[in-house]
Amino acid sequence: MPSEAGDGFRRRAAALLRSAANDLKRDDDNAERDLGLEPGSFADYTSGRRPVDWGLIRRAAEVWPLNERDLLPVHDDCPRGLSVMRAKESRSSSRVLARGGEGYYEYRDTAMSRIASYRPEWIRMLRVVGDNDPDNPLVQWNRGHLLYQFTYFVGPVNYYYRWQGRSYCAPMETGDSVWGLPFAPHSFTARSDSEPAYILALTYGGSLVGDAQRELAVLGRQAAHGLALPVADGPSSLAAALRSFMAAQAVTPAELAARTGLASARIRQLTGEDTEDTGGSAVESELGVLAQGLGVSVRDLLPPRSGTHHGVAIQHGRDARSWFLPDEDTPAYRLTRLAGDPLHPHTSALQVDVLTPAARSDAQLVTYQHQYLYVLGDQPVEVGWEHSGERGTELLEPGDSAYVEPQVPVTFSTGGGGQHPRVLLLRIAGAVTPEVRYALGTMAEGGINRYIAEDQLWYSKEGSDRRA
Amino acid sequence: MPSEAGDGFRRRAAALLRSAANDLKRDDDNAERDLGLEPGSFADYTSGRRPVDWGLIRRAAEVWPLNERDLLPVHDDCPRGLSVMRAKESRSSSRVLARGGEGYYEYRDTAMSRIASYRPEWIRMLRVVGDNDPDNPLVQWNRGHLLYQFTYFVGPVNYYYRWQGRSYCAPMETGDSVWGLPFAPHSFTARSDSEPAYILALTYGGSLVGDAQRELAVLGRQAAHGLALPVADGPSSLAAALRSFMAAQAVTPAELAARTGLASARIRQLTGEDTEDTGGSAVESELGVLAQGLGVSVRDLLPPRSGTHHGVAIQHGRDARSWFLPDEDTPAYRLTRLAGDPLHPHTSALQVDVLTPAARSDAQLVTYQHQYLYVLGDQPVEVGWEHSGERGTELLEPGDSAYVEPQVPVTFSTGGGGQHPRVLLLRIAGAVTPEVRYALGTMAEGGINRYIAEDQLWYSKEGSDRRA
Repeated sequence: MPSEAGDGFRRRAAALLRSAANDLKRDDDNAERDLGLEPGSFADYTSGRRPVDWGLIRRAAEVWPLNERDLLPVHDDCPRGLSVMRAKESRSSSRVLARGGEGYYEYRDTAMSRIASYRPEWIRMLRVVGDNDPDNPLVQWNRGHLLYQFTYFVGPVNYYYRWQGRSYCAPMETGDSVWGLPFAPHSFTARSDSEPAYILALTYGGSLVGDAQRELAVLGRQAAHGLALPVADGPSSLAAALRSFMAAQAVTPAELAARTGLASARIRQLTGEDTEDTGGSAVESELGVLAQGLGVSVRDLLPPRSGTHHGVAIQHGRDARSWFLPDEDTPAYRLTRLAGDPLHPHTSALQVDVLTPAARSDAQLVTYQHQYLYVLGDQPVEVGWEHSGERGTELLEPGDSAYVEPQVPVTFSTGGGGQHPRVLLLRIAGAVTPEVRYALGTMAEGGINRYIAEDQLWYSKEGSDRRA
Repeated sequence: MPSEAGDGFRRRAAALLRSAANDLKRDDDNAERDLGLEPGSFADYTSGRRPVDWGLIRRAAEVWPLNERDLLPVHDDCPRGLSVMRAKESRSSSRVLARGGEGYYEYRDTAMSRIASYRPEWIRMLRVVGDNDPDNPLVQWNRGHLLYQFTYFVGPVNYYYRWQGRSYCAPMETGDSVWGLPFAPHSFTARSDSEPAYILALTYGGSLVGDAQRELAVLGRQAAHGLALPVADGPSSLAAALRSFMAAQAVTPAELAARTGLASARIRQLTGEDTEDTGGSAVESELGVLAQGLGVSVRDLLPPRSGTHHGVAIQHGRDARSWFLPDEDTPAYRLTRLAGDPLHPHTSALQVDVLTPAARSDAQLVTYQHQYLYVLGDQPVEVGWEHSGERGTELLEPGDSAYVEPQVPVTFSTGGGGQHPRVLLLRIAGAVTPEVRYALGTMAEGGINRYIAEDQLWYSKEGSDRRA
């Protein structure tokens, strides 16, 4: 383990080892025999008295059907619930990336955390163009990248994007924003060299990084292509979901007809087998009986929708919705909705104009999402938060950025200054998906606490456990 | 890395390193500087010419905002797409777990893989009881465990479960099955010592293990409890989802009313703020405008449903649905639906009676799920499959078990024997959730292949990349 790994990391590693042994139904004696440990020592590891080291992890991954990473926790680099990266630190990470031997972008890191999948960069455009032509040879395109990208524009920036072989240019201004799909090539230039032209390129991996990527890397290309589900308007998306569930349950059209009371011909229409007559979309009552018959929920049959056009969702500031929180009469903030897409229902991008001189309890912002914030404009902002029963405040200067953990309440205030500070907020989901959140909601009593830190064998050696 | 780690593991580790550097917008020069590597060596690591070792992983987790596990792939212990554990190997893993000093269960491992979250055990009941009293003092309860458990019963087995402090006993017979929620205490005994009495206890972690658990372990108890969403009939579940999305987007009831055209009073009813008058469930048109207004899909607003009662879903064999595949006139298999729950729409449990003497192409079973199979009864079964363009067959004897990768087509046949073999199938979702599957369906051209094995910088140093 890294030498700087704290007590928390050690405790979490201990709990993972106990959890892994429990899952494999190994008590301490079995585990010691399997791992070649001296008698009595397993409890030292699972209690945190002895650190779980790389040697033990390797051995466990050899003798047990698990992987090294299954025994590794993550680092808590945000013990106060909010961590700040100052503009000065960002500036010191500055690096120029060249294309064809000439500087094209200046990159600076902003706030990141080991807990979240954000990879947010401040990027200044070094290339200046005199037109909005997507085929301008001065424009240097990238190859696209894995991460989703939310971009906020400051100054006269041209945004170029390519989709299915065609290139587009969208001239952007301060307050405009865009959300884009992975692996689509794109580029940025400045339309002027006399004013600031930069972007906040807030990339994040979301559900695409982590376990899913590891699994698909093993399963390979063919399986990955086979697992893709179409996002489309109309009946084809439901048809794909239905076929997928029918295959999962080895249910034939005749059996599904018998379970649902729908005619076999209608089942063939809904599953897209009858290509000549699709018979129209499923109505609500049909979705209900299909879900019942397949033993799933209606939500599982409904596809997500997307508002992207050519792979992107552009939101110009001039058309963006704004509202006041908590209300128009006594506003603490003016909020503006930035670019996003229903494909990522758990991503929200907001511009916050801070109007209140002091933190207000009726203007606390709390969410299940991870949060990233960046101070736009030229006014400092005071941020207050609560974590583990403690309150914190920080004065953030323009160009400062911060990461905030889920469920940490945050307030903003001007700190008494007459001007209105402006904050960019990007909130994203972590690995705790709705499925996991609903699972937490159905766990037996005491389950949640054991789930996040298993510290005991799954049974009592002495006999029945009467605590339950 | 473990010495037995193959080329595949090394290649996948190389791709993860390139991907991590890309995500952090580090080209080779930057990465070498950050990691203290000699010039030119980074490409050796990301190409797989030099193995990514633990030292490099530790260093990366120190200087970059990521964790050791983010750079670790998983092992492919199933290179043929299907792997078998013979009954003999299972027997050799036999171990007796005692309660109060007396043997209570005999455990045997069955087929597992490092790719999937199955922890399936064969368990024989050593304790014999003479009644069906849940409070029989001979019954030794466990504390419950993290994993979901699907159980298939063979012989006269009593199943005990406890929910919210009350204990229950369900007398089970061969062919009965049950699906249960995590952390609920349970136990098993035999009603007879003169006939076999055992279970297949097929536990699996699903979405609860892996990244989500790591993240919640850092966020802590309070956050984990705060993230739980209720699974309930009636309006309270929608209300919780709506409040969660409104908080995520910092949308006030007034703003949501303006976006949707619904009255503010109705919004208060739907979000559960008006506790005196809930005004009835949301109708389809309201769900549509709410999803539109919040920028999500209708699926995101609908809660899952559960059919569990006291934490379990019991399916007696005598009431179970059966059907033939591909059809009743020329059946290859008779399928029987075993226990499950809509909370886990991607888990399916099936009993397969194999009727066909030879593998049939119209009876190939393919699914997006991971598969576990166990040969019940006393007849061997022939299993055929295809993987990477190669066909395999194995004769599985009673008590043999196997793991099958997603998307691998499988057939069963009697191999010419006159009797009908019986196979237990448990299929579960992996880390590739519907969200990821829909994301695969929307990636830009070529994205899927790069997603599972990134082998290039995200841009060309020479200038524009014209391949896109």
